[in-house]
Amino acid sequence: MHYPTIPPIDKQAAKQAQARQNRLTKPPGSLGRLEEISIQLAGMKAYPMPEVSKKAVIVMAADHGVALEGVSAFPVEVTKQMVLNFLHGGAAINVLARQAGAATHIVDIGVASDFDPSLPGLWRRKIAHGTRNMAKEPAMTRVQAEQALACGMEVLAEIAEKGLDVIATGDMGIGNTTSSAAIVAVMAGLPVDKVTGRGTGLDDAGLLRKIQVIEQAIAVNQPDPNDPMDVLCKVGGLEIAGLAGVMIAAAARRIPVAVDGFISTAAAMIGVGLVPDVRHYLFGAHRSVEIGHQVMHKHLGLTPLLNLNLRLGEGTGAVLAFHLLEAACRLLREMATFDEAGVSDKAG
Amino acid sequence: MHYPTIPPIDKQAAKQAQARQNRLTKPPGSLGRLEEISIQLAGMKAYPMPEVSKKAVIVMAADHGVALEGVSAFPVEVTKQMVLNFLHGGAAINVLARQAGAATHIVDIGVASDFDPSLPGLWRRKIAHGTRNMAKEPAMTRVQAEQALACGMEVLAEIAEKGLDVIATGDMGIGNTTSSAAIVAVMAGLPVDKVTGRGTGLDDAGLLRKIQVIEQAIAVNQPDPNDPMDVLCKVGGLEIAGLAGVMIAAAARRIPVAVDGFISTAAAMIGVGLVPDVRHYLFGAHRSVEIGHQVMHKHLGLTPLLNLNLRLGEGTGAVLAFHLLEAACRLLREMATFDEAGVSDKAG
Repeated sequence: MHYPTIPPIDKQAAKQAQARQNRLTKPPGSLGRLEEISIQLAGMKAYPMPEVSKKAVIVMAADHGVALEGVSAFPVEVTKQMVLNFLHGGAAINVLARQAGAATHIVDIGVASDFDPSLPGLWRRKIAHGTRNMAKEPAMTRVQAEQALACGMEVLAEIAEKGLDVIATGDMGIGNTTSSAAIVAVMAGLPVDKVTGRGTGLDDAGLLRKIQVIEQAIAVNQPDPNDPMDVLCKVGGLEIAGLAGVMIAAAARRIPVAVDGFISTAAAMIGVGLVPDVRHYLFGAHRSVEIGHQVMHKHLGLTPLLNLNLRLGEGTGAVLAFHLLEAACRLLREMATFDEAGVSDKAG
Repeated sequence: MHYPTIPPIDKQAAKQAQARQNRLTKPPGSLGRLEEISIQLAGMKAYPMPEVSKKAVIVMAADHGVALEGVSAFPVEVTKQMVLNFLHGGAAINVLARQAGAATHIVDIGVASDFDPSLPGLWRRKIAHGTRNMAKEPAMTRVQAEQALACGMEVLAEIAEKGLDVIATGDMGIGNTTSSAAIVAVMAGLPVDKVTGRGTGLDDAGLLRKIQVIEQAIAVNQPDPNDPMDVLCKVGGLEIAGLAGVMIAAAARRIPVAVDGFISTAAAMIGVGLVPDVRHYLFGAHRSVEIGHQVMHKHLGLTPLLNLNLRLGEGTGAVLAFHLLEAACRLLREMATFDEAGVSDKAG
């Protein structure tokens, strides 16, 4: 598999943004993380006055064979039903994307059931009718995983061609917190029960079952923690592979990525595992309720921007974080300097 | 002083909002604090489908006699200079208010120097040319404090008459973290050094001096912790009184308040001290860097929505929180229900 080159962060642009922040009419540093974000964005975009006007969210949808093991509070049909809901504009991600002025791209990368061919607005990139049951065998073949990664890269590339300042990642797939917990358990080398949560709302018995299923999947497949492709194939998901591809292709184009919740951050672990420099183009959008999410952020060195007890996925937290990224850029671009405004600075 | 009656939270409307949240196409509770916010807003507004379209921020500006003691990293002239910056649209609050679609109202409630009478856009409500030096005498007379409270109530009332869904509070005043730290030290009964921070950027020696000045102000004036009006007069500020008035008048009209940082939350302590039911209409917008801010939130029972290491004031954090309040309402109003979207719910 060929991966694109990731350009280095432009330290000169970041430095210029930092210098401008110190001339703006406020005590230096008083805008806290918003200042840091603006400087990071300048470095990512290799431009001292970055913008995040053109925004989009890519929601990758796929099913998981492991759902057969009863690891979710919701039935498998919900993946398809929610894709239809996305296309009709009725889901949480639609509402939040409208508010943030972001375009919504829904990708069928592996939903178990088929969609009416006349249905408009769907990216039809189905690689398989869901993964296989990882509790019994590898979730994907290597060919499937590479196709899914390539799919994510292609979708991002197509969207970027029409102009894109920032991308949010989103997911839909019944069973995908099970896959994500398996990924973080393996890659962070932690016991499954330390990184597995209730997903869409399991009770205590369901959570116990989910932990056992993940332990079984790891025992059966023996994924190699040092080989992200091996982890992806054995306990990953098609949407997770696709989102990893999105992140790799975005970083290659200097497009910052707002990484959503537990599933998107599992994808980030894979993406960064495959292409380490992708890390420099990621923002952790929010800290979700899933207990393994903190572990992922620590592993990636990301400090989430929001902490609102979200646990929905779809890209909801990532699109909410767009408001903060936009605020950071607008402050850097639009605020007056001490000189322009005739305000005395600290020394004054 | 006469205060308006605060209507009780409408539990029926809150209940209806909660019931709708449980029918929307997502696992119940999965939108975390956004669900809670929507339910709170429904109760505040006595309407099960609340909106936060018409937004505004009121920035109250005033000077502090205690600034003579050298408690700020910036010179006193900056209060006036920043008001001019606000009126020209070059300050952080202008940028963030534009982004959030909020109107900006700048009130001279007690700036030490005078403004050109031909200057447009300023609410001219100067009660005094700054407070007196609280390190030596009470900051205000009771008449001044009551005038400032009334001013805040009047400004809010005038703005609300033209339609207002939610209000953010903001402040400008060199020396006002000193006053705010004194308020929280007295009202929460804590040592001054536990609630006093670096404000706009004091060094270690400056911080030590600030703590000593506050201790002196408390020793000289002996404010009564159980009498918020006494605290306000002796160690408060004109902008703090004005913002307390804004909050009281907003609560009386069922208008939710996004309370900004350290100074605004000091004002909330005064406002809630004077009229306890005001508390039910407040959101803690963010947790600032100031160490006393956490104490204030705990005292008021507020959990801040954002934590971005801000320490600027002006209403910046409050206006940022508008995006979250708006998201909460839009999700409640615009998302499809399970029935509408044909999505299987948990039992399905």
